Amino acid sequence: MTSSVGLDRVLEPAGVLPQAAWRLDASPEISEDEVRVRVERLNLDAASYRQLSEKHGGDGAAIRAEVLEIVGARGKMHNPVTGSGGMLIGVVEEVGPRSPLGVQPGDRVATLVSLTLTPLRITDGLRDWDGRGEQVPAAGTAILFGRSIVGVLPADLAPELALAVYDVCGAPALTDRVVRGYDRPAVAVLGGAGKSGSLALAAARLAGARTIGVVRDEGEAVALRAAGIADVVVVADARNPVEVAAAVGEPATVTVVCVDVPGCEHGAILATAPGGTVIFFSMATSFPAAALGAEGLAADVTMLIGNGYVPGHAEFAVGLLRRVPAVRSLFEARLARD
Amino acid sequence: MTSSVGLDRVLEPAGVLPQAAWRLDASPEISEDEVRVRVERLNLDAASYRQLSEKHGGDGAAIRAEVLEIVGARGKMHNPVTGSGGMLIGVVEEVGPRSPLGVQPGDRVATLVSLTLTPLRITDGLRDWDGRGEQVPAAGTAILFGRSIVGVLPADLAPELALAVYDVCGAPALTDRVVRGYDRPAVAVLGGAGKSGSLALAAARLAGARTIGVVRDEGEAVALRAAGIADVVVVADARNPVEVAAAVGEPATVTVVCVDVPGCEHGAILATAPGGTVIFFSMATSFPAAALGAEGLAADVTMLIGNGYVPGHAEFAVGLLRRVPAVRSLFEARLARD
Repeated sequence: MTSSVGLDRVLEPAGVLPQAAWRLDASPEISEDEVRVRVERLNLDAASYRQLSEKHGGDGAAIRAEVLEIVGARGKMHNPVTGSGGMLIGVVEEVGPRSPLGVQPGDRVATLVSLTLTPLRITDGLRDWDGRGEQVPAAGTAILFGRSIVGVLPADLAPELALAVYDVCGAPALTDRVVRGYDRPAVAVLGGAGKSGSLALAAARLAGARTIGVVRDEGEAVALRAAGIADVVVVADARNPVEVAAAVGEPATVTVVCVDVPGCEHGAILATAPGGTVIFFSMATSFPAAALGAEGLAADVTMLIGNGYVPGHAEFAVGLLRRVPAVRSLFEARLARD
Repeated sequence: MTSSVGLDRVLEPAGVLPQAAWRLDASPEISEDEVRVRVERLNLDAASYRQLSEKHGGDGAAIRAEVLEIVGARGKMHNPVTGSGGMLIGVVEEVGPRSPLGVQPGDRVATLVSLTLTPLRITDGLRDWDGRGEQVPAAGTAILFGRSIVGVLPADLAPELALAVYDVCGAPALTDRVVRGYDRPAVAVLGGAGKSGSLALAAARLAGARTIGVVRDEGEAVALRAAGIADVVVVADARNPVEVAAAVGEPATVTVVCVDVPGCEHGAILATAPGGTVIFFSMATSFPAAALGAEGLAADVTMLIGNGYVPGHAEFAVGLLRRVPAVRSLFEARLARD
């Protein structure tokens, strides 16, 4: 097991897993069960990009410089403030003889594990990126371990679209699983017009739920209503608990948090019925705020840390995109804006 | 609903719930549905006390000064670094005419909501506390809101013991609920010799599970073996994922994290079988480390944020203490050391 989770790539501190490491060895030579990918594009985690953008007041050159600095210092794109990363796409360059991943040199793939644990070397100074969006054209190399997850890109989706879907594909799969555990549930999704949010809404509806999309402004409400995946669309500031609870109305059976800003825990808890479940997918979620918030509100709700891995999650998300063209349109519109 | 969750006590920022607030109004005058408690003792959250103690190198006077500073500045004992608080005991002094809590002036009570949302005023400068333990003799006033949880102290338990049990009573109740959802589960508890850990082990065993206690050293192992609540006791550093997984051996159905130090997420995930559940009770848990760790390990496990509130949790925990004298002994030994 030792090498398959990447322990040999950890430079400091010793003995931790790659995700917990401060610094990885990103050298391109692979061991027997590793795979080297020639990087084409990074997709930064939304919380990470937002933090960088706010820190630098939207200055693209400064954002780019900091991304290069992080990757250079850590051997991975692991934002030290948000603790989050993102994903990448590229072409398989070399496959170790003992790799279990089932890919071949030349395959165009997306990594389905986080950039926070993926050894990464950037060789082009990110010269083709203006620093103004989460999608980062890049040249360099990335390493996949034996125990990893990788998806060959579907032929019917643009790579940018596939990457954006894969980045959040844990959300619809886990939402589907949780929603099917309830009888005739109502599902509220905070951030319902976003990427993970719209997929979660589509998954909940296909699983038989009544769906409530909570969005931040009228523009998003119009887009989400047009998509037709929410039975009700309401506008509320997800960071304002009283506003969220009032907007949702009758408490939801399942509340899914897909808003990548801090401070959404209490609204989600207040909006959820006793015996219900809150699924937190935002990397901006604070563990103590959720745990103590539920206790402080005497709220008997199950709170799930949104696991980015559910078996078959990538295929499930791509299937949703094919079955629900409106979700695909939301994604494409969002990518066009980025 | 507005006043019952304490919104009127929030001074800044406006519009958030008391737990999320930077500063509360801790003035002793109560509104119609509030209760004022004359404080006798605070029980600081373990993660919070540890952080303060490490910061000040165990200097009791400096620790005490910082606690006073936090309470003075924030109107509550809400450690700004760990985000955690603790609980208190005291005597009910005044009950608003519309309070739903069912207590009377003179009742000796423990608050079962966190200190992070409890308006608190300290009036004795904590002069009876040497700063060297989590149990803090204190004089002052605390406010309980309408929507709160409070427990009258049981006559057969010393107040310090009841407070220590109530502080962690969410852990055994939630462990019981989760364990009963599996058939013939194996339950591993990281930090099994501690307060929440020993209660979780006792609850798991009474729910029919095979139990594995993971502790940090041979001293704890001896104590836990003597208590007889774990079928197997193993020693491992909870922050070392490979060590934890090796110590647990055959992956557990349910892993309960009760170790109040950062960095235990990956070991818990690695030690848990596919389809299993990890319950995080430590306030030192990092949300991104857990979410990205499970993804990075391609681990299909359900991860729960340990909700401090389960209906009946206080009575359940006190009942465990009465049924399993060894757990009571572990608690009493720990309190004697503090």
